[in-house]
Amino acid sequence: MKIAILTIGNELMSGRIADTNSSFIAREANLQGWRVEAMMAVEDDFAAIKSRLDYLLPLADAIICTGGLGPTADDITTEAVAQAFGLPLYKDESVLNHIKDIFAKRNLVWVENNTKQAIFPQGAHIIANPLGTAAGFALNVSGKWIFVVPGVPRETQRMFPEGVIPILRREFPQNELYVARQTIKTFGISEALVDKNLEDIDFAALGVSVGFYPVFPENHVVLVSRQTTAEAAKEKLKLACDEVVVRLNKYIFSYGEETLEEIVAGMLKEKKLTIAVAESCTGGLITNRLTDVPGSSEYLERAAVTYSNAAKISLLNVPSEIIEKHGAVSEETARLMAEGVRKMAGTDLGLSSTGIAGPSGGSEAKPTGTVYLALSDGGQTICRHYVYRWDRKRNKMFFSQAALLMLKNYLEEKG
Amino acid sequence: MKIAILTIGNELMSGRIADTNSSFIAREANLQGWRVEAMMAVEDDFAAIKSRLDYLLPLADAIICTGGLGPTADDITTEAVAQAFGLPLYKDESVLNHIKDIFAKRNLVWVENNTKQAIFPQGAHIIANPLGTAAGFALNVSGKWIFVVPGVPRETQRMFPEGVIPILRREFPQNELYVARQTIKTFGISEALVDKNLEDIDFAALGVSVGFYPVFPENHVVLVSRQTTAEAAKEKLKLACDEVVVRLNKYIFSYGEETLEEIVAGMLKEKKLTIAVAESCTGGLITNRLTDVPGSSEYLERAAVTYSNAAKISLLNVPSEIIEKHGAVSEETARLMAEGVRKMAGTDLGLSSTGIAGPSGGSEAKPTGTVYLALSDGGQTICRHYVYRWDRKRNKMFFSQAALLMLKNYLEEKG
Repeated sequence: MKIAILTIGNELMSGRIADTNSSFIAREANLQGWRVEAMMAVEDDFAAIKSRLDYLLPLADAIICTGGLGPTADDITTEAVAQAFGLPLYKDESVLNHIKDIFAKRNLVWVENNTKQAIFPQGAHIIANPLGTAAGFALNVSGKWIFVVPGVPRETQRMFPEGVIPILRREFPQNELYVARQTIKTFGISEALVDKNLEDIDFAALGVSVGFYPVFPENHVVLVSRQTTAEAAKEKLKLACDEVVVRLNKYIFSYGEETLEEIVAGMLKEKKLTIAVAESCTGGLITNRLTDVPGSSEYLERAAVTYSNAAKISLLNVPSEIIEKHGAVSEETARLMAEGVRKMAGTDLGLSSTGIAGPSGGSEAKPTGTVYLALSDGGQTICRHYVYRWDRKRNKMFFSQAALLMLKNYLEEKG
Repeated sequence: MKIAILTIGNELMSGRIADTNSSFIAREANLQGWRVEAMMAVEDDFAAIKSRLDYLLPLADAIICTGGLGPTADDITTEAVAQAFGLPLYKDESVLNHIKDIFAKRNLVWVENNTKQAIFPQGAHIIANPLGTAAGFALNVSGKWIFVVPGVPRETQRMFPEGVIPILRREFPQNELYVARQTIKTFGISEALVDKNLEDIDFAALGVSVGFYPVFPENHVVLVSRQTTAEAAKEKLKLACDEVVVRLNKYIFSYGEETLEEIVAGMLKEKKLTIAVAESCTGGLITNRLTDVPGSSEYLERAAVTYSNAAKISLLNVPSEIIEKHGAVSEETARLMAEGVRKMAGTDLGLSSTGIAGPSGGSEAKPTGTVYLALSDGGQTICRHYVYRWDRKRNKMFFSQAALLMLKNYLEEKG
């Protein structure tokens, strides 16, 4: 079953408001196994709305329109849709009474132009709005379905699943497909190399569609299998997933929707471990990501952003001779920072970063983008060294990503 | 001049990624005085892309396409556009060398399918990509202009203004050659309220076009005046700007393009002041923002993310009795944190945050979203108290914004 989405409103065409309804509807439709054939936005204009509907109608089995159902003069969607299909309008008394009820309950003054929201094209199936006064409607026009719901995102997000999907599932039963989906998250490999590594896999033959999504600094591979039974969908997905895993293995850090910080937070909580962080070049970003997860006080005791050498010496007890001899950006300093912050905080773990985010500060031996990351548990201290070649903000993001991955790998190995 | 926008990508049609490029391009086009006639999204499919281009071409003078310029197999935009207009493809050696340079600089392994990004339709004007490997291009097809830029929002946001607009202005010259532009950045007022406060201003009558840009957590108002003389452009802009300022005064924090952290960094450097930060609920975000600015070691000495009470007590010398009596989230604690971190670091200024980012941890007296921010200079300590109603990550962003604004206002008053 194919659908088209038409979002209606001058505020979209002027760029005043970014459309979020289309992606919501598309996601929901995909989960139903339906295909989104077209997406358009159009202004509040009779001729333009008719033109877009005329274009979309042959492309899809159903058109989902959102927006333009308000009571004001610029809201013309109902009338424009009726005109486009040559349908007369009628006033629905039960909807009118419902709107009047809402006004009474909210102590709002009744203004006659609110009657407009009780006007529908002849033959419309009303779609109730549980949140507001703008009811939606469905029309069957020569076997095609036209749906109209309000443009307010929270109303769309109730009315599409509750009002539109049930009608479409009833009307297009033969197209019910079972969908299985798998996200595979990678880090440390470019989008091009992900693609190159997977190019010998015939996904179509496996009955699976594949998508590549760069979500800086990660690259995600998404596999979707649509089959006539849930078992077949799962089985085909698993076969395709195995093929991907063989090829990307060392870059994969997750198969779920959780963020890296959420994964690490979950592991720390589960193992009841506490952590302290000593950051230099990442400037607080590692800690900021760790504290983006609700309940982070369970595992994060404290962090020190020791930007100056004095701070590294006085707060973390890094000996000044070490900094003089090896430099603030060195494996030695990173290790002592991790050990120092762990001791200072009295936590199970200490994590540190020291490096050069740029744009200046690099040398031949230690170019911009160099980072040393260390993790201490009191028994051992591990250290990793990387050189990235991004700009300052993206270097910081790569540094923090590598630090969180080092922590995740440690926690996994610890079992 | 009329434009159409065509965003291309399976990730849009599956709803996995919400399209933000269309609204960006629409806003920019509106500021140029152009009309957005149509907006569409389409999947990475030859026939579908051709069909949409065929539909859009008669509607507009120029079509702006975004997306599908990556090196992977599913990126087919260049080939699809060439096919749609019956143009052969060629390899651009200078673009190829540029891409190879980027790979070398970033220490990335060259993979032959990256050559794809140097392929263009015959007759294409290359549009440079200052941020990545995907160059865009412009085609003139029987008097209509087709532009193709990458779908990565930060690349679109550079390449549309820098690469596309100049060509369109040259090809569709207007009488109003002199342009004056003013960005007005606000914080603490919603987009809807910005709009409401300005609705009585007749911008068209003032000869100025207006755009609203939500840049979380800020809302920017951009005014553009195009006139036949530079003086007229400046004058009209000033009149419109004055009207906006009268209505939004207390929410405006900047009239420039610099970020808030860049503004604050510039002021600290200029005044040769050093700062240390003590963060609780912001979890490192304030410091992360302060260190996003190159050269931040000039003013940032250190920061402490004192998440636990023990850390507040031992690192910042906040007396435990104060925390017991007033709570960790209190004006008293915030003040002592700012004073404590300043003393510990030996800096001119100490900045602190303590609050409840949520989702849990709130109470009736101190609901989720509560924050206390303090700034100490050794002589005085100022404190601000706010309650925001966002989710955890957005509360953190609001807290950090309010902290940086408090710092900015202090530095301004200090003169």
